[in-house]
Amino acid sequence: MSDRSDSLFMKALRREPTERRPIWLMRQAGRYLPEYRATRARAGSFLKLAGNPELACEVTLQPIERYGFDASILFSDILILPHAMGLGLGFEPGEGPWFERPIRTPADIDRLPTPDPNDDTGYVMEAVRLIRASLPAGTPLIGFAGSPWTVATYMIEGRSSKDFATAKKLLLGEPAAARQLMNHLADTTADYLIAQVEAGADALMIFDSWGGALSPTLYRDYSLASQQRIVDRLGSACHDTPIILFGKGCGQHLELLADTGCDGLGVDWTLDMGEARLRVGDRVALQGNLDPAVMLTSPEIIQREARRVLDSFGDAPGHIFNLGHGITPGVPPEHVQVLVETVRS
Amino acid sequence: MSDRSDSLFMKALRREPTERRPIWLMRQAGRYLPEYRATRARAGSFLKLAGNPELACEVTLQPIERYGFDASILFSDILILPHAMGLGLGFEPGEGPWFERPIRTPADIDRLPTPDPNDDTGYVMEAVRLIRASLPAGTPLIGFAGSPWTVATYMIEGRSSKDFATAKKLLLGEPAAARQLMNHLADTTADYLIAQVEAGADALMIFDSWGGALSPTLYRDYSLASQQRIVDRLGSACHDTPIILFGKGCGQHLELLADTGCDGLGVDWTLDMGEARLRVGDRVALQGNLDPAVMLTSPEIIQREARRVLDSFGDAPGHIFNLGHGITPGVPPEHVQVLVETVRS
Repeated sequence: MSDRSDSLFMKALRREPTERRPIWLMRQAGRYLPEYRATRARAGSFLKLAGNPELACEVTLQPIERYGFDASILFSDILILPHAMGLGLGFEPGEGPWFERPIRTPADIDRLPTPDPNDDTGYVMEAVRLIRASLPAGTPLIGFAGSPWTVATYMIEGRSSKDFATAKKLLLGEPAAARQLMNHLADTTADYLIAQVEAGADALMIFDSWGGALSPTLYRDYSLASQQRIVDRLGSACHDTPIILFGKGCGQHLELLADTGCDGLGVDWTLDMGEARLRVGDRVALQGNLDPAVMLTSPEIIQREARRVLDSFGDAPGHIFNLGHGITPGVPPEHVQVLVETVRS
Repeated sequence: MSDRSDSLFMKALRREPTERRPIWLMRQAGRYLPEYRATRARAGSFLKLAGNPELACEVTLQPIERYGFDASILFSDILILPHAMGLGLGFEPGEGPWFERPIRTPADIDRLPTPDPNDDTGYVMEAVRLIRASLPAGTPLIGFAGSPWTVATYMIEGRSSKDFATAKKLLLGEPAAARQLMNHLADTTADYLIAQVEAGADALMIFDSWGGALSPTLYRDYSLASQQRIVDRLGSACHDTPIILFGKGCGQHLELLADTGCDGLGVDWTLDMGEARLRVGDRVALQGNLDPAVMLTSPEIIQREARRVLDSFGDAPGHIFNLGHGITPGVPPEHVQVLVETVRS
């Protein structure tokens, strides 16, 4: 039993009562912080920052030092794993990530290697070890990965997409190859997350940014099924480590996600927290769900809207306060202070 | 009672039994059709095409002539109304629409004129009259407008947006000004739609493309409330004309939308039609909801996925077959033929 086992974050994930609600923010180590921008400038690029364990550790700790968040999340990217499969990740300024060698055919899928998490992504595990050693003993560290469907969209489209036409064409037209790809991604993602736990992660999170773009049938057959496969693998391999699933735009699938056996669900800002809790009951913790756009307004509005989220969830245990999506670059750092104080008061 | 009153489309909107399900496609007069691209090239630009009643009529009729769709929809754009308010609409190639003079302050909102639908948008009404006179007598014509919230996002942001930060800031920080803007847009939109009915539209549709970006509170207070205001105004002014509300990414609000007193709801592809019908019962017709990405695949997959939608809705009356969003430019026209034949068989 680690020091973190009794932290607000870990207790909330177990739906145990806490004296106040834990808070952390998705993308809390990010461009809204001047100290992040300084480290990033020293690194030279996003990929060099994510690829350097010392610098990744440095930026991971910055928001903990500034705000004392109740959980820390590894600074990395969901595309690091396919990058380790040799697709050639690049970041175009203002354009988002892209792959030099996208996969398009069943033969491309057949050829995908199985990365060794401690070798091919050893720098990530080294970052986890450094962060764990540097964090306050009571602050849990969250490891993470992208969902197989979300990662696959980038691998297939080659970049972010509006309609995911090529990726959906694979799912609809080549179901055997698509399933092979999802299973390969689920298994390598599970290995990657298990290695993060072995390196020191206290909890895990899977980001399904594009699950909401799928029809219910494709969602269940591919996005949900592959997340289930990961949850099952993690359940056997490291059954003490809680898992949070976050699907943006997946509010219609909340019950199905809760049924996977995960410990917590991230909720985006398009649902009322109270309604979400009514729908899933206390079988999972809920994390969220202030609209990130609120953070750009004013202290008064941030206080009012944060209280609305707190009140909507109500007094039951099992709420981890967060935004409904990542914090955006233009947020004044003092607005985050206001949010933290509101949730803590 | 017009000839169209007994059409498949109008009967389905009244939830009366029909011998087969009506079908039409959002954006059916669009770039996937070579004859559309030819007319558009002659016009010189999208705005010149939408602004020329003869050419707008020509492209509106093209998909009716080619496929015999069960309903026709006016060729126009949801930004024509704010364009008539003097904001200066432009279309950047590949960038989407933008406004030269976006509104940013309560004073800007105060200054917004009230366009006369038959004068400032007289070319739209002329297009409706021409289309009505040219269409087969039994083919209903759908008039449309954007929802006040969706139109407001472009008016405030000046262009399409990813996070609608400026528009949301107005809603959160200046509720009185925001309400004034929504009411002004609702009232002018109602006038604009009533004029379309007077010019010959048989049914009306309101497109809320960005309602899904709002938190439930903001959605109810602004997007839904302003659509309700339009439905109420139309109900008194032209109570025989059915109204369809389409909110993309608004599946969580389906019951609220059905409660407005509208006649039909557009459903995007992220919900099962059968589940949507279970949730709203037979108090509204449902229109949708094949994923537009399916249209890019193959005849076999189009047949299979269209049947899935038909089966999901089931045998009850009140289903208007459509895509879950507009048809995309890359769709081969023969794929649309396959879809039409599948739904009709």
